[in-house]
Amino acid sequence: MESAIDTHLACPRSISRRVPADYQPPFPMWVGRADHQIEQVTMGYLGVQSRGEDQRFAALGAVRHLVDSLSTADGTQHHDITHHVDNQGYDNYIVVGYWNDPATFRRWLRSPEVDQWWTSEDRITDGIGYFREIISPRVDQFETLYAFQEQLPGVGALMSDISGEINEHGYWGSMRERVPLSQTDWMQPAETDTLHIVSGDPHSGGRVVVAGHDNIALIRSGQDWREAGVEERALYLDEIQPTLQAGMDFLRDNGADVGCYSNRMVRNIDVDGNPVDESYNIGHWRSLERLERWAESHPTHLRIFTTFFKVAGDLDKLRLYHEVSVSSGADQTFEYINCHPATGMMRDATPGPAA
Amino acid sequence: MESAIDTHLACPRSISRRVPADYQPPFPMWVGRADHQIEQVTMGYLGVQSRGEDQRFAALGAVRHLVDSLSTADGTQHHDITHHVDNQGYDNYIVVGYWNDPATFRRWLRSPEVDQWWTSEDRITDGIGYFREIISPRVDQFETLYAFQEQLPGVGALMSDISGEINEHGYWGSMRERVPLSQTDWMQPAETDTLHIVSGDPHSGGRVVVAGHDNIALIRSGQDWREAGVEERALYLDEIQPTLQAGMDFLRDNGADVGCYSNRMVRNIDVDGNPVDESYNIGHWRSLERLERWAESHPTHLRIFTTFFKVAGDLDKLRLYHEVSVSSGADQTFEYINCHPATGMMRDATPGPAA
Repeated sequence: MESAIDTHLACPRSISRRVPADYQPPFPMWVGRADHQIEQVTMGYLGVQSRGEDQRFAALGAVRHLVDSLSTADGTQHHDITHHVDNQGYDNYIVVGYWNDPATFRRWLRSPEVDQWWTSEDRITDGIGYFREIISPRVDQFETLYAFQEQLPGVGALMSDISGEINEHGYWGSMRERVPLSQTDWMQPAETDTLHIVSGDPHSGGRVVVAGHDNIALIRSGQDWREAGVEERALYLDEIQPTLQAGMDFLRDNGADVGCYSNRMVRNIDVDGNPVDESYNIGHWRSLERLERWAESHPTHLRIFTTFFKVAGDLDKLRLYHEVSVSSGADQTFEYINCHPATGMMRDATPGPAA
Repeated sequence: MESAIDTHLACPRSISRRVPADYQPPFPMWVGRADHQIEQVTMGYLGVQSRGEDQRFAALGAVRHLVDSLSTADGTQHHDITHHVDNQGYDNYIVVGYWNDPATFRRWLRSPEVDQWWTSEDRITDGIGYFREIISPRVDQFETLYAFQEQLPGVGALMSDISGEINEHGYWGSMRERVPLSQTDWMQPAETDTLHIVSGDPHSGGRVVVAGHDNIALIRSGQDWREAGVEERALYLDEIQPTLQAGMDFLRDNGADVGCYSNRMVRNIDVDGNPVDESYNIGHWRSLERLERWAESHPTHLRIFTTFFKVAGDLDKLRLYHEVSVSSGADQTFEYINCHPATGMMRDATPGPAA
């Protein structure tokens, strides 16, 4: 049994854990272990927004362009592609890349091919929408949790190793306690922090930049049933998925009331747009605390949680995991081109700079 | 908004809370406020065990005797009477009295009428069973929580006042944080602590004394629908009660696996044995931590919790509450006369003194 917090990130606590020192988790779980030289990562969610079959070809062309752009110098070795229809009826394709160093990411972002494509007047005129939601959490600002030990997805692709069985899971509050910064920091935004629009007008289309704030939390919570046998497919598709979808739809539609800025349940696809048997949820929250409060009290999430508790010890090929980060406002980028005004962080953003 | 921890019991923390300083609960709840001169209380659960209609008259006679005995000098002003059938098919009647000073309780216990009745050979020969489960938590060892503000039940009967709206509720871990001792102490039993039989043999009947250990937790969790209107009666009887009963039956029958030594869902009765529209659960746990783990993860309790969350802000006459304590081993008394061997703390007690 080891701590979820890697040895080089452990420090004297000013904030105690919520469970006694002899706490024993009810089943095994693991976390990713990154090379100690990695200090900060970049998670780049690069989006394409279209509507209906007519725009599908154009949208998938843009997706292919984004995927290709990740193969350039300073790009990423690993990416996912997903699709979802949002509650305004728009198709959204997201290519997600993970960098193990924000400096590399910045070089990639500023490379002529990437920069010129994004700033091109064609992005305004070619009839579909685009967005970039990018955060760069330091290694003490994120955590992972896997019910398996191989081929780690998401930020796990940057991890060279997997932990032994970790202690900090199986109780409410363990997510926070896996984030190394929780040893000394509550990771709270300031009371006056809000999302605000830095440039553009979401209701007029065109280019919009939204500024975030310190300690916005991002959760990616995933399911991979590609290799699952009959029983585990049924477990996921019949027992877990419907409740999960209900909970995630609730957050998509009512997130503003509970501190969830944006919530997208996405389905993995291949580069041609064909669905594969993987999905995940992407949730942006005002704070880790708001995420905790919702997760601990909403019936749909509690149902998911109890189902997971019941089956976690016996999972074979059904892969369940999550990664959660907080990031500093300065390490966040939220940009939109011709997306509808409820897209991503635009929905809850207020005009003008924060007070 | 005030702290659940009364001002005179607040102290510098060595253990932090689990929520940020600006945490705001989702609906109001209150705690009892006792006179600051009260340092320790005694909770005396005085039981009568019988079987079937044939023994009902004798059992109710014993109940009446116990109730009368509480009116003697050094008795209590307040008591409850309850009945439940346990999972061995026995009827159990419990008279519960609360004392605001263990010294007064001890004088009561040692008074000739109480002492002679308990030690009398008649208790061995009169054909029914008896038990006394008594704990004396200090005021820093217990907490209360009420969704109402008047006529506090249980230990609340010792309280002269009610708090304003308190901060520490609405999140997992708040129960612990309402106990003043949690500021500096994990309230954990030692790993080697067990229940053990001090004298007698549960399987032979007669008199049995069980020794507890430090930090056994006792929860009394109650429902009072005497004054509830049609809608709230339906809410309790149709929505809350069936799930509650399922959860409490689970603990009654499977408690040993999760650290619950004894669990009794009891119905309030009058002194003639007629049911009234109040009930509560009496749960003895190895530790507060085991109680937390079960409450936070078991489907039945999570369903009760989400229902409560949904309705808590609108409760009118339906009264929901709980009180939770830990106590030192030296402040616990568990005695049984002619009770079946699965009664109370006997079930999980091992022979002989602990190592």
